[in-house]
Amino acid sequence: MPETHAARRTALRALLTDAGLDALLVTDLLNIRYLTGFTGSNAALLLHAELDDRTAFCTDGRYTTQSSVEVPDLKRVLDRASAAAMIRHGSALPNLYRRVGFESQHVSVEQFEKLDDLAEGLELTRAPGLVERLRLVKDEVEVDALRRACAVADRALADLIESGGIRPGRTEREVARELESRMLDHGSSGPSFESIVAAGTNSAIPHHRPTDAVLATGDFLKLDFGATVDGYHSDMTRTLVLGAPADWQREVYELVRRSQAAGRDALAPGADVTEVDAAARTVIDEAGYGAEFAHGLGHGVGLQVHEAPSLAATGAGTLSAGMAVTVEPGVYLAGRGGVRIEDTLVVRDGTPELLTLSSKELVVV
Amino acid sequence: MPETHAARRTALRALLTDAGLDALLVTDLLNIRYLTGFTGSNAALLLHAELDDRTAFCTDGRYTTQSSVEVPDLKRVLDRASAAAMIRHGSALPNLYRRVGFESQHVSVEQFEKLDDLAEGLELTRAPGLVERLRLVKDEVEVDALRRACAVADRALADLIESGGIRPGRTEREVARELESRMLDHGSSGPSFESIVAAGTNSAIPHHRPTDAVLATGDFLKLDFGATVDGYHSDMTRTLVLGAPADWQREVYELVRRSQAAGRDALAPGADVTEVDAAARTVIDEAGYGAEFAHGLGHGVGLQVHEAPSLAATGAGTLSAGMAVTVEPGVYLAGRGGVRIEDTLVVRDGTPELLTLSSKELVVV
Repeated sequence: MPETHAARRTALRALLTDAGLDALLVTDLLNIRYLTGFTGSNAALLLHAELDDRTAFCTDGRYTTQSSVEVPDLKRVLDRASAAAMIRHGSALPNLYRRVGFESQHVSVEQFEKLDDLAEGLELTRAPGLVERLRLVKDEVEVDALRRACAVADRALADLIESGGIRPGRTEREVARELESRMLDHGSSGPSFESIVAAGTNSAIPHHRPTDAVLATGDFLKLDFGATVDGYHSDMTRTLVLGAPADWQREVYELVRRSQAAGRDALAPGADVTEVDAAARTVIDEAGYGAEFAHGLGHGVGLQVHEAPSLAATGAGTLSAGMAVTVEPGVYLAGRGGVRIEDTLVVRDGTPELLTLSSKELVVV
Repeated sequence: MPETHAARRTALRALLTDAGLDALLVTDLLNIRYLTGFTGSNAALLLHAELDDRTAFCTDGRYTTQSSVEVPDLKRVLDRASAAAMIRHGSALPNLYRRVGFESQHVSVEQFEKLDDLAEGLELTRAPGLVERLRLVKDEVEVDALRRACAVADRALADLIESGGIRPGRTEREVARELESRMLDHGSSGPSFESIVAAGTNSAIPHHRPTDAVLATGDFLKLDFGATVDGYHSDMTRTLVLGAPADWQREVYELVRRSQAAGRDALAPGADVTEVDAAARTVIDEAGYGAEFAHGLGHGVGLQVHEAPSLAATGAGTLSAGMAVTVEPGVYLAGRGGVRIEDTLVVRDGTPELLTLSSKELVVV
């Protein structure tokens, strides 16, 4: 793992050189985790554009042992005020540090003023989104973590269904509890996000929180959930039916299934994110349900469960091989029920790699 | 609950008037929850200094239903770019909005520039920490939520001990899982923070993460955990012994117990936070273990598990009735084991109110 983090820092140094920066002050904890492996709750990194030997990492005394294990390969400073300590560190080395970028999309107006006051001889320069730009394309260590997170969610859902955990009489909350518990059993460190378990008419609410509503025969049951493994998130939605599906349920399900397949097929390096969204949306639009699909098609997934790119009509940019995204169209019929089908996939040069492997046939339980 | 939120907004309006502001743009989601009851993931609030009727709340279309239930009493705008929408709302009413404060400790440098560009006719003014100042002193609705969160943690620990869940042969991870599962059973919406379960020599690591280390007879077992109820957090640490305690274990335990009692006794309106820290620390210093107690005594608890005030030598300010804080001294003997005892309490005019009621006798399991 130290090699992986070193390789990511090397890639970042190229961006710093391009931007004419001597160094980048990294204060976002996920970006620090990405670049160093550190998982504690207080840290800052002053990454030099030329040499990793000059890069300094700061955390506080609570993490002395942990940081020596997780970050064995960087100069370490122990200070509670980690960002300020890194600015002082740079100020003390005027030959090495002059133009220092900071993560202006994360640093608050108050914090910036304090850091700028400390920055003697340094020119603190706005440098938003540099690490995020790297994080857009996952390396194989990241894809492996995503793959394992998705496998945990797949196994938990299979267990839940096979053991009869989805049945009339149970509440949404009970199902969510069991699903989360089974993910923990399989190695998740916690849910990726607040699980959505929505039965019957609740399935028509896109972001429904589990309640004491009781599952009944004939209900749609929409499950949107994920596991976290090594800090990486999975994200999957499946919609089932309890008992024999009605015709309208089959029709809506089939429509969403076709839309989702069209969205997956559109994932390719160079594809514009708005076109990917459109590929799935057209299927639903043409069936006359465009107004019932009122959210974007998908989003990037990684150290955050929602990150760039946004696969939506309002998104911008094109896909690259190695991006991990969700594809999740839905049709929601208020007062009746709704269907969403969501996978996590990695964009590849050929066919995209599907990470969430649970069946997308209409499952009847 | 709408009355509670309205009362909090009234209190905030007095602070705005004192600061010479026409309004405050609130963008921090916890502050928005505190002022409105909204629990979604995207919102902004433009709170007018004179009249609640002029206050506007913004969220996006995913939360149409949820926000109409949670925030029935405020003018509502639906827009994905919630903070920008609130700035446009204010700009369109130049007679009402001129000096508008923003939460400069939360708004990033990038976000500020975008908002400032939109702010036609508005003077966006730094106004850090106003809502946080109110949140320092809990109202009775908040204390009630904290009380219930602490009761959930107490019950989960009692269940775990009574059912024999703490025994030689189990791993730290298994104990953490069961503790968290039992908190969910009793109504927690999730752990307050990553639970600490530290057995044997691991108990000497203040912030140890549960591992596959196996509990053994003679071990200290340190449990630091909490429940979340209505968004409020509990925080409690207990240290037990598996089997008959050795003399050194009794001595360290008794020392920390006395220190913790001294800290609790020092909680009173008007007490300086550094003096409260010193009251507990002196006990440990005098026993010669000062270097083994290398963290602050405690912290505020509420919508965040760590919030102001800081009870530490580096803290500042005095306590007031209604503040909710932890008192958590510890002594950590590297390579042997450590003890921490922590309660959550509310500062009251007389004796502080103890919210975590689990026994602080040295429990032998």
